[in-house]
Amino acid sequence: MADPKIEEILAPLRACVKEQGDLVRKLKDEKAPEIDIKKAVAELKTRKKILEDKELSLAPTEELFDRSKMEDLIKRRFFYDQSFAIYGGITGQFDFGPMGCALKSNMIQLWRKYFILQEQMLEVDCSILTPEPVLKASGHVERFADLMTKDIKSGECFRLDHLIKAHLEKIKSEKNTSAELKAEIEDILVKLDGMNSDEMSALMKRFDMKSPISGNELTPPIEFNLMFNTQIGPSGLVKGFLRPETAQGIFVNFKRLLEFNQGRLPFAAAQIGNSFRNEISPRSGLLRVREFTMCEIEHFCDTKDHPKFESVKNTQMLFYSADSQEQGRPAEVLTIGEAVARGTVNNETLGYFMARIHLYMIAVGIDPKKLRFRQHMGNEMAHYACDCWDAECLSSYGWVECVGCADRSAYDLTQHSKATGTRLAAEKKLPAPKQIEVVEAVANKAAIGKEFKKDAKAINDGLAAMDSTALEQLQEKLDSDGEYVLNTPNGDFKLTPKLVNVKKSQKTIHVEEIIPSVIEPSFGVGRILYCILEHNFKMREGDEQRTYFSLPATVAPMKCAVLPLSGNTEFQPFVRELSQELTSVDVSHKVDDSSGSIGRRYARTDELGVPYAITVDFDTMKEPHTVTLRERDSMGQIRLPLQDVPTIVRDLTNSKILWADAEAQYPKFEQQENVKGAAA
Amino acid sequence: MADPKIEEILAPLRACVKEQGDLVRKLKDEKAPEIDIKKAVAELKTRKKILEDKELSLAPTEELFDRSKMEDLIKRRFFYDQSFAIYGGITGQFDFGPMGCALKSNMIQLWRKYFILQEQMLEVDCSILTPEPVLKASGHVERFADLMTKDIKSGECFRLDHLIKAHLEKIKSEKNTSAELKAEIEDILVKLDGMNSDEMSALMKRFDMKSPISGNELTPPIEFNLMFNTQIGPSGLVKGFLRPETAQGIFVNFKRLLEFNQGRLPFAAAQIGNSFRNEISPRSGLLRVREFTMCEIEHFCDTKDHPKFESVKNTQMLFYSADSQEQGRPAEVLTIGEAVARGTVNNETLGYFMARIHLYMIAVGIDPKKLRFRQHMGNEMAHYACDCWDAECLSSYGWVECVGCADRSAYDLTQHSKATGTRLAAEKKLPAPKQIEVVEAVANKAAIGKEFKKDAKAINDGLAAMDSTALEQLQEKLDSDGEYVLNTPNGDFKLTPKLVNVKKSQKTIHVEEIIPSVIEPSFGVGRILYCILEHNFKMREGDEQRTYFSLPATVAPMKCAVLPLSGNTEFQPFVRELSQELTSVDVSHKVDDSSGSIGRRYARTDELGVPYAITVDFDTMKEPHTVTLRERDSMGQIRLPLQDVPTIVRDLTNSKILWADAEAQYPKFEQQENVKGAAA
Repeated sequence: MADPKIEEILAPLRACVKEQGDLVRKLKDEKAPEIDIKKAVAELKTRKKILEDKELSLAPTEELFDRSKMEDLIKRRFFYDQSFAIYGGITGQFDFGPMGCALKSNMIQLWRKYFILQEQMLEVDCSILTPEPVLKASGHVERFADLMTKDIKSGECFRLDHLIKAHLEKIKSEKNTSAELKAEIEDILVKLDGMNSDEMSALMKRFDMKSPISGNELTPPIEFNLMFNTQIGPSGLVKGFLRPETAQGIFVNFKRLLEFNQGRLPFAAAQIGNSFRNEISPRSGLLRVREFTMCEIEHFCDTKDHPKFESVKNTQMLFYSADSQEQGRPAEVLTIGEAVARGTVNNETLGYFMARIHLYMIAVGIDPKKLRFRQHMGNEMAHYACDCWDAECLSSYGWVECVGCADRSAYDLTQHSKATGTRLAAEKKLPAPKQIEVVEAVANKAAIGKEFKKDAKAINDGLAAMDSTALEQLQEKLDSDGEYVLNTPNGDFKLTPKLVNVKKSQKTIHVEEIIPSVIEPSFGVGRILYCILEHNFKMREGDEQRTYFSLPATVAPMKCAVLPLSGNTEFQPFVRELSQELTSVDVSHKVDDSSGSIGRRYARTDELGVPYAITVDFDTMKEPHTVTLRERDSMGQIRLPLQDVPTIVRDLTNSKILWADAEAQYPKFEQQENVKGAAA
Repeated sequence: MADPKIEEILAPLRACVKEQGDLVRKLKDEKAPEIDIKKAVAELKTRKKILEDKELSLAPTEELFDRSKMEDLIKRRFFYDQSFAIYGGITGQFDFGPMGCALKSNMIQLWRKYFILQEQMLEVDCSILTPEPVLKASGHVERFADLMTKDIKSGECFRLDHLIKAHLEKIKSEKNTSAELKAEIEDILVKLDGMNSDEMSALMKRFDMKSPISGNELTPPIEFNLMFNTQIGPSGLVKGFLRPETAQGIFVNFKRLLEFNQGRLPFAAAQIGNSFRNEISPRSGLLRVREFTMCEIEHFCDTKDHPKFESVKNTQMLFYSADSQEQGRPAEVLTIGEAVARGTVNNETLGYFMARIHLYMIAVGIDPKKLRFRQHMGNEMAHYACDCWDAECLSSYGWVECVGCADRSAYDLTQHSKATGTRLAAEKKLPAPKQIEVVEAVANKAAIGKEFKKDAKAINDGLAAMDSTALEQLQEKLDSDGEYVLNTPNGDFKLTPKLVNVKKSQKTIHVEEIIPSVIEPSFGVGRILYCILEHNFKMREGDEQRTYFSLPATVAPMKCAVLPLSGNTEFQPFVRELSQELTSVDVSHKVDDSSGSIGRRYARTDELGVPYAITVDFDTMKEPHTVTLRERDSMGQIRLPLQDVPTIVRDLTNSKILWADAEAQYPKFEQQENVKGAAA
């Protein structure tokens, strides 16, 4: 990987990161005040960013990538475009046209094969509209928010951290700002990431921040929850959200899925569907949007070894561990077997999924040189995760998180168990029976019903959900005060020894109840799709105007094009027959009988990423009937019998044979393609 | 079809419908007052309903259908169940478990093949969140509503027509209600369907209606729009809805799709995705829900003949035309060719799609005897349709609309053109060039810009959108009054001759601009899925407890099960090998190595609708290795070499070979299945 010259330039930057990484560790070891740790982490991030930017700028670029050229092609051939464009468009929403939609649907179909079929996962399809209590339990109502501020007159919104940063950087750059203030601002910027609402509010006041657009006053910081809300049903009383992830639908169905799997662990459930996040300022095309398709897997397990790990252990991947990041070391290539053996990756199950993710990404057309697995550092994990590796793809926007592979531990199942009183747990047979002390609440349900009426259920559920520690406290209180106050979702209730008691007893058990851990690979389909397009965007040598997508046949929007050489009606029966035959072997294709030279039409199919083109010409009409088959990337052509074409194209696009095999089997067809200016 | 005895019973009811149908026609011909027509239509509907109920009650039932038994199986094996059940559930929302999800996804996959691949349609994938102006233009903001009333204390909601009907029927049934009042109530009930908000409000007052649950006062009628609303973006100012149908996403992209199709008509676009309707009172399981998957096609065309009609013209289908309904005649079996030739179905394009819908429905497992095409009568069409045939499936809930096939004419494209000023039209080459008079507004854009600033665009767009009649009025006004008031979305503006003039000129044109008609087949996936389950729910002869789904292999959730005879570890390598081989030929399957007799496990795979089961037993271990293959519906078994199984099962499930072929090829395997009580 490493070029010694580049490494020489990077060495001081690496040292600079390492120094700060060591400081962070030291502070953590010393249990230093949290604010000091936060400050040190923020500085560490800044240094990491400088190192990473330098690394990217020095990396050898194979070819020039011209984003505007690609975006033009994407728009012109309607891979995707802004939604409701004739109405002025909506930021953060995109419509996939025929080519983008086919690409997306092929990616999903392959995903289904790779994960659901091959791993025999349980696929589910759950509701998007989600009632509030579910997302309260999962922590999203409270924590899935960003801070923002509004222009008090126009109502325009700004993400608060972005606004403060821009404002302070402007002051810092002004000539008449004192050196003292500049230093202070630097210090603030470093701390900004970890600041709470009050701290940011104080900054707004101190620096008298106004709307950067209108100059109007701004509101105090507002916690803006990123979930779209609505009301379910006509009463307007049932608050609901559009789900921000598909995962919760799986967690709330855990019991039924476990039952479907005949009570056994491990098993994985998967879901493909749309999620919604009301981003304050969507940007970067498909990379930050308000509505997006996810493919999520929740693998429920009680041990972390994996029976199929052996089958992937030699997969080579690029790892960028939290440790490497803190120590300023570059990402390193290892086999997943080595990474697990060294402890870089925590366990086989996590490792197995990471390898499978890697293989899937390569299969759909991600450039393996532009794919890395980066581990989250302790301070950047989502509220539910205890370890997380992101599959990141290098794009013109930098490294983009495309797949998250998180260890959510037992967080979600525990939360939903607490919220509903339904035990979301599995039973595991013990190696030998065990004597245990059972502590349980013995409720006088009749008396509770009589005294609390409609709240009785909440009370009984609350009692049933108490663990042994809580039950001991309950008994102590009843003994000492003669009453115990139980908190329930319906309010607080006083319970007396007449209503409840705590019973201890011995019991022989053969199984133990366990709340499984969850490993969650979560794929952002739109982000992967965008990176596939970038990684496969090519220009013909010597003709920059002639651009195309070298998409793998598995995901290409169509597998082939059928092109009659001209509008001659005698070609039509052959074109029709070919089209029917291709349909009968499930090869998606497009007949392009529009006017325009054959070179121009090849260029058009290239732009669509179509890997093969079949040309019907005057020789086709002679017996035996033959046609030309052209491969997109090499532009090589062969001549073969008409009746061979459908199966050859099917086998080529299913990777059953290679283009080289076809070239070996049939004579080459030599004819100069009119390359120059053909793309117009 | 017709049984003379049954027809004898039905004859007077048919006459009764015909009499009323004739009356409706007469009133329409005479241009009678609308209220009289409405009343007559309502009475016609009532008579139709009586006839239809009688017809259903007399129809020969092949087998007893026990809905509760089927629902038990659906729930127990988690085909689907109420969403968020551990939180108490939400009405009108369902989660599909592994079996339901696989069935649904196979249905969609086949749909994609039948329609998108075979017809080379342009598939798109558009946003769910839709800004208000789009749905204003489509008419949904104004017209997609039901009337309801609320309990003023509890906030409980009632669909107003349901509430009034129940209230009046109760009064009518009371002993001390006078004969006079009873007659009047009958009259009201007949008219209820066509009443507006004020009329219903008057009824509520007159009969002093209260909440039937609490007895509290009720609010006046409220128009309740069935779309879920939310805000897009953080400002709270951009109102949006969850789309009530996927169609609008296609219409707003018409221009780009036409361009993708190189400007040529006809072409069809298709979309598969979720839509949302906030039903006031969801019911009947999957049949009336708040969130559902649709597959929609919009076929844009300028002529109504269809090049592939020939290929389907002999398809036999059951037609129930508007005319038959009005005349009390039964539905009739015709080929689609006859139906179009007779004018029962208006044109080839509509007919082609109806036949394709029919074939698809049969392929996914709908019983052809329980499938009919019913034409909407004039008074029941959606606001955008000018003709509509529904594919209806007979279920235990009666005839259920599963697919709508509507002629939306140019309604939607016209509406969006008006709303945006973007011409959503195609160009068609004229047979010969034509001289036409062109009338156009000549706007002084500089002057308009200066005078109206930010409103200039709205004014220019408004002028550009005027047709020739409007332009002539504009000129007249300018001539007579020296000014013209233009209505725009930004308000009204006075225009003077300095700002705008109308120019007439002669022009030779080679193309004409046409707004295409739209034929829209629209599939409700959940409803079809439910009907498939009903039509394929079976009981084993002689054992009512042993129920199963005889799903066609194409859509069955899994294609086969692999069952080791017992927990003997020597079976494991064979099971593993089989599983790998099945995976490599893309056959979805499940290994069921749970304890339980083989008969019990067969019963379980039958319940899941799995068509084939492979059993590994002691004979498998002998050379040559053989296994048993069992077919679900016949319970027939054959013995075949292990290595033959994967391709045989693949070919069976792809309908390449029939079970009879397999039975002819391999020896029968005779062994009594333990049938009784095995399902437990």
